[in-house]
Amino acid sequence: MPKVVDHDARRRVVTAAAAHLISEGGVDAVTVRELARATRCSTAVVSHYFKNKRELLVCTFREATDHVRTRLDIVFARDPGDLRGVLEAVLPLDEERRRDWSVWLAFWADAIADVELGGEQRQRVRDMREIVADVLRTSGRAPERVDAEARRLLTTVIGIAVQASFDPEEWPPDRQREVLDELLPIRG
Amino acid sequence: MPKVVDHDARRRVVTAAAAHLISEGGVDAVTVRELARATRCSTAVVSHYFKNKRELLVCTFREATDHVRTRLDIVFARDPGDLRGVLEAVLPLDEERRRDWSVWLAFWADAIADVELGGEQRQRVRDMREIVADVLRTSGRAPERVDAEARRLLTTVIGIAVQASFDPEEWPPDRQREVLDELLPIRG
Repeated sequence: MPKVVDHDARRRVVTAAAAHLISEGGVDAVTVRELARATRCSTAVVSHYFKNKRELLVCTFREATDHVRTRLDIVFARDPGDLRGVLEAVLPLDEERRRDWSVWLAFWADAIADVELGGEQRQRVRDMREIVADVLRTSGRAPERVDAEARRLLTTVIGIAVQASFDPEEWPPDRQREVLDELLPIRG
Repeated sequence: MPKVVDHDARRRVVTAAAAHLISEGGVDAVTVRELARATRCSTAVVSHYFKNKRELLVCTFREATDHVRTRLDIVFARDPGDLRGVLEAVLPLDEERRRDWSVWLAFWADAIADVELGGEQRQRVRDMREIVADVLRTSGRAPERVDAEARRLLTTVIGIAVQASFDPEEWPPDRQREVLDELLPIRG
């Protein structure tokens, strides 16, 4: 019987390895050889799943974005109006979220002048803003305030995350939450 | 008489060309050949000024940061308490400032896992926060509020700038100012 290979799972193993390599050594650290070493696959197998480094980087970027969706699912299952939970799903508060930010930051350098990659980043932020707006609506915020407030909240989250990525000492989790708290209404 | 070459000026010509190339084509577009073409120097001259691409990138990053200092000097000469002017010196409100952000974003990918480059970015943000805090103090803000407020303002500026860099349509100058305005006290 031929061995059944779960290709999606294999691809995710490779993108997960790529995310680790990026967060530890930057994009240049992502090589077929290092990916093979990290995934214990042959270089042929690793190369098989991605046409080129660009495609691998895009998939790694999307995978980091999928992590946010997974975290959001958990938040929403508990409480669909948990605004703080939604925003914390994006903040670099633990190792996984810090790694996701490394991947996004690495991606931005290529996305600056690349229509397709720039579009991915643009859409990611627009989607996230829409999610925050939905939560605000669910929580009964006045409709005419929702868009501006979602924009303001996400702007703060991105500003915190960028600073925290390069200055974790100055931005421990408590401080990230503190700055966010100033913007959040108190919930009863 | 031998021709006198202003080496600092020459270096700035090369970093300015690098900034243009980055904003139009990303870091990969920065090659000795393209720099030579853009600066109308020989490839030998271009190579002479920078040990390697990393050094060129660091200098281009610092040059973008120097632009902020120049803009701040102009703001301070007019009004040392002009908080909005100080923050707008960093927002991507025109072509030069958008290009500066392209350079910083390009730099971040390399700075993620590089102690020296990461330190440059960290220090740049810390310095800028200190400048904002100074303006707040000058404007008579209560001392115990200054640090938190400077942190909040700079966080917003960074969050706006990152989004505007990838989504200029969604973030025209008026909207950038609008989001900033919500945080600024009204000045008489």
